[in-house]
Amino acid sequence: MDAIDVLRAKRDGRRLSPEQIRWIIGAYTDGSVPDEQMSALLMAVFFRGLSPDELVVWTQAMIDSGERKDLSSLGRPTADKHSTGGVGDKITLPLAPLVAACGVAVPQLSGRGLGHTGGTLDKLESIVGWRADVHEGAYLRQLREIGAVICAAGNDLAPADKKLYALRDVTGTVESIPLIASSIMSKKIAEGADALVLDVKTGSGAFMKDPDSSRELARTMVGLGQAAGVRTVALVTAMDRPLGRAAGNAVEVAESVEVLAGGGPADVVELTLALAREMLAGAGRSDVDPADALADGRAMDVWRRMIAAQGGDPGAPLPQPAEKHVVTAPATGTLTRLDAYALGVAAWRLGAGRARKEDSVSAAAGVVWTAGVGEQVTAGQPLLELHTDDPARIPRALEALEEAIGVDTGEVPLPLVIDRITA
Amino acid sequence: MDAIDVLRAKRDGRRLSPEQIRWIIGAYTDGSVPDEQMSALLMAVFFRGLSPDELVVWTQAMIDSGERKDLSSLGRPTADKHSTGGVGDKITLPLAPLVAACGVAVPQLSGRGLGHTGGTLDKLESIVGWRADVHEGAYLRQLREIGAVICAAGNDLAPADKKLYALRDVTGTVESIPLIASSIMSKKIAEGADALVLDVKTGSGAFMKDPDSSRELARTMVGLGQAAGVRTVALVTAMDRPLGRAAGNAVEVAESVEVLAGGGPADVVELTLALAREMLAGAGRSDVDPADALADGRAMDVWRRMIAAQGGDPGAPLPQPAEKHVVTAPATGTLTRLDAYALGVAAWRLGAGRARKEDSVSAAAGVVWTAGVGEQVTAGQPLLELHTDDPARIPRALEALEEAIGVDTGEVPLPLVIDRITA
Repeated sequence: MDAIDVLRAKRDGRRLSPEQIRWIIGAYTDGSVPDEQMSALLMAVFFRGLSPDELVVWTQAMIDSGERKDLSSLGRPTADKHSTGGVGDKITLPLAPLVAACGVAVPQLSGRGLGHTGGTLDKLESIVGWRADVHEGAYLRQLREIGAVICAAGNDLAPADKKLYALRDVTGTVESIPLIASSIMSKKIAEGADALVLDVKTGSGAFMKDPDSSRELARTMVGLGQAAGVRTVALVTAMDRPLGRAAGNAVEVAESVEVLAGGGPADVVELTLALAREMLAGAGRSDVDPADALADGRAMDVWRRMIAAQGGDPGAPLPQPAEKHVVTAPATGTLTRLDAYALGVAAWRLGAGRARKEDSVSAAAGVVWTAGVGEQVTAGQPLLELHTDDPARIPRALEALEEAIGVDTGEVPLPLVIDRITA
Repeated sequence: MDAIDVLRAKRDGRRLSPEQIRWIIGAYTDGSVPDEQMSALLMAVFFRGLSPDELVVWTQAMIDSGERKDLSSLGRPTADKHSTGGVGDKITLPLAPLVAACGVAVPQLSGRGLGHTGGTLDKLESIVGWRADVHEGAYLRQLREIGAVICAAGNDLAPADKKLYALRDVTGTVESIPLIASSIMSKKIAEGADALVLDVKTGSGAFMKDPDSSRELARTMVGLGQAAGVRTVALVTAMDRPLGRAAGNAVEVAESVEVLAGGGPADVVELTLALAREMLAGAGRSDVDPADALADGRAMDVWRRMIAAQGGDPGAPLPQPAEKHVVTAPATGTLTRLDAYALGVAAWRLGAGRARKEDSVSAAAGVVWTAGVGEQVTAGQPLLELHTDDPARIPRALEALEEAIGVDTGEVPLPLVIDRITA
């Protein structure tokens, strides 16, 4: 096999053979095909796409660069969720213990945030003592005994993706549906769950800005899941405004705990329950109503055990910011715009996110807000509260928020759940 | 400036600013933009192209990565020729001394062959003692005293091109008209000649297989030459069959000497004179008829002095092959096909060309033929003679020739000069 033949074939719009795909993914992972050839191929894929058949083989080759985990020894159904990322999207935090409380194990291998969307692990690390790294034996034991684990993925999980993702990041080849879909699905399939629910975000704060691209990504990923024998469903959900009332790290943990305690913002509760029902249905437990497990405290019990198992103290106070800055409502009327992207950038600039992989994040940084879209606000009332450890960060965060808030602008927010995509 | 912004702009079909182009060519040349980003950009250029304005800046940035030579101290007009490469294309060898004999200096910086087309320097190196490397001072002296020099380009001639070409070669981004045009023209413009004639080949043995793509490449290059203040004309010429009666190294030198002696195959003489007339016209000497300088031996005199100045013995016998193998005509009738690509591959496999840059070539290897397309042949007459130092190479050369010869097939060869492209 020769990388140039593969490159030319894709460049000229010819279909790659399964042998070609398996060879080039393997050879790139082991270093025998260099970055400059793979980046040219990725750009050719950006322009030419991958057919559904090519994409199934491509994704499988990425999975086969590592190991697909076998969770059958748990003796109970398993399900996981993946979100394409949004602002204030802390749903994994209440969802994993909730589904586990309903009898379905949740093996959630997660990542850190980059740019304006937060990372699940970054949020959980604001809990004193909590550790993202769980070794293989402890991982299976926690899944068996508690039913839920949220931790960092090991290096054996689709290592091809790790290398490809870093390359795409610097070569302008991130924004390609087959490349996004294979990146997400290779890791999620390798994780070994029986069922998978995808939360594909759409809107300013999401990777995909419009519902049609989000639907296309959802369909592509559902197809890949089904082809790999994982029962997969996707919900396309709104990310024109942020989820809940908080975006950041500790502030999102606090909100998640509110939801687990039976309270919390209505949208977070609604989406958590909708995704929990899909996970339970995928795992063959559609007879169970997750609302009960929220109401009676079982989900909270699993949360406490899950946090404690990874060294965290679920009762410890969360970090507080050195500085808070209030932004007031600009007018009286209905809040019709609270732009997700702007809030995400503001939280990021306050210290909640990172610009480069090697940066650290501030646990206390973030934004909380007192009203969501569709609600009444009064001119001058406190609307946003900016949290940061470094007051010098506030001006740039305020800059990001300049066009973020709209009152009575006539804008109509997207419904929370826009579409449901099945095989 | 950020490479990813440049990459994304081109990927998404936006025009690159002059600053962006100058920055990325410079940063790639000095190593601050890595190969994997440049290869992704080259693939994006493959798909999106470069506008005429972008291409002028891109080419100028490549020239500015080194130095544009100043030949004004020669005190006489200068002209050069570039061929996009073909089989049996030895035209540079008789052409340079011929034009010099007519009073126009020819500063021909040449390359080596790769693949099925031969390299001018490889051919000349079959002359005992001849050296391709000429240092700057000797180069100018030879141009002043003899009027013609054919030698290897130094590292200061468009160094961006050297790096870009090596990258394109391994990333499937060779076949792009703006990238081909900027590669050729950056070097030719930097060479410093007043006038330039481009011989753009078309047909099976050429890089461009059809006249329309060749015309497009010709127009693009003529535009770049004019934009840089070089009087540039292009001839689009036939490469469906090879030029002359020989393809290889020593065999092409022998044929060139025949032409300089007033003989040689009609097509080689015709094309040499046509290109010489364009070079002389471009240099303001359309009053001179190069046919006279061929007929009266002045061109041969310059040839001898030019070869001797670079250490060669123009009178020494040329290398002879260890083995010759004859291929006879398959039928009686008109020879209608003598496929340029097949003959080029055969000569290459006999040892005349190289597969990798670091390979050496055999001076004696090649193919000669006794009849050209349009001529009568008799079944069983010797038609091709394969020359090699290694008899084990003959079977693979014969394989390449399997479909190369056609008698009375009804194929109509292209006219030798298909089109003339001016600004």
